[in-house]
Amino acid sequence: MKLYDAGRAPNPRRVRIFLAEKGIQIPLVPVDISKLEHKRPEFAAINPVRLTPVLELDDGTRISESIAICRYFEEIQPQPPLFGRTSLEKALVEMWQRRIELGLFAQVAHVFRHSHPAMAEMEVPQVPDFAEANRPRVFASLRILEEALEGRPYITGETFTVADITGLVALDFMKPAKLTLPPDLPNVLAWYVRLKARPSANA
Amino acid sequence: MKLYDAGRAPNPRRVRIFLAEKGIQIPLVPVDISKLEHKRPEFAAINPVRLTPVLELDDGTRISESIAICRYFEEIQPQPPLFGRTSLEKALVEMWQRRIELGLFAQVAHVFRHSHPAMAEMEVPQVPDFAEANRPRVFASLRILEEALEGRPYITGETFTVADITGLVALDFMKPAKLTLPPDLPNVLAWYVRLKARPSANA
Repeated sequence: MKLYDAGRAPNPRRVRIFLAEKGIQIPLVPVDISKLEHKRPEFAAINPVRLTPVLELDDGTRISESIAICRYFEEIQPQPPLFGRTSLEKALVEMWQRRIELGLFAQVAHVFRHSHPAMAEMEVPQVPDFAEANRPRVFASLRILEEALEGRPYITGETFTVADITGLVALDFMKPAKLTLPPDLPNVLAWYVRLKARPSANA
Repeated sequence: MKLYDAGRAPNPRRVRIFLAEKGIQIPLVPVDISKLEHKRPEFAAINPVRLTPVLELDDGTRISESIAICRYFEEIQPQPPLFGRTSLEKALVEMWQRRIELGLFAQVAHVFRHSHPAMAEMEVPQVPDFAEANRPRVFASLRILEEALEGRPYITGETFTVADITGLVALDFMKPAKLTLPPDLPNVLAWYVRLKARPSANA
């Protein structure tokens, strides 16, 4: 088993954090996305949608999409559970994972990809108006998280889950997107500090 | 149990198709998104991210995000399995669900939301350049599906899954987005016809 990985990019990091939380170590195959290696035909043979990360099993089967890879590891090594335990917990983890991914992480990514000069070769065409349109959405999503985190250490309650991993990666991604966490969100800030303090945050 | 539903909108339809495939009937509570009912404070109390659908359980717990709702029903009524059976199948269903959702459905939605006059009040601001940027991505994604569907009735293989539901809804969504399925994609076309022929497509 091996994981096609791409260093600082946020999606491969989601999987590395997940594996660190599970205590799983697997060989990493570096893909240099700054050199657009993932856009080359050789990589399209590994993943036709040309995105990292990709998990390759020993029989050659390849699984792409960070959350699909995480779910595979949840299935083959259920402890500690990071996608919820009961039917309801599983639904609520999925709900928050998606709310954070689609409502915060994607918006931060839109700002980054459509405004950062370093992305000019990768995001073609960059649409600066779209970056601007997403800026206020990031802050609106943070306010929803602020309310949801009231009295809770983690976004779905008492237990750390994959939804928190997406949250950590999204908050870290604000820095290269040149977005600053507003100071009037104490719950989000405490959550962020809590997540960054976990050893897995270094993965 | 009841489902806050929004008629023709594609996400609530994903859940209705899923329920039809499971043979589950639950009461629907209509939300008129054309009147922006989902943007009102009353609806924010039901779902802070102001999106439909929302499942409300008998104890008042609310689950939003279409796929989270579908997963809840998969958990409480596993037959027929629509998220895969084995660990690997579950990962591959999740992979294709996400590839189609993020690589086709989202792109079609971007074209629709940023170009259709009817969306001017809902998508503020509309960014026509972003609609244009997404048009070629829709067709690139369809070509990836064309290749993947070679020799397969459904996107993950022999069995209909939730990934096919996202595919059907995305392909149907091309019409209001004024995107036409290219004629040189026989596998995609046959898949589309196969999905539309299922009774659940009318849900």
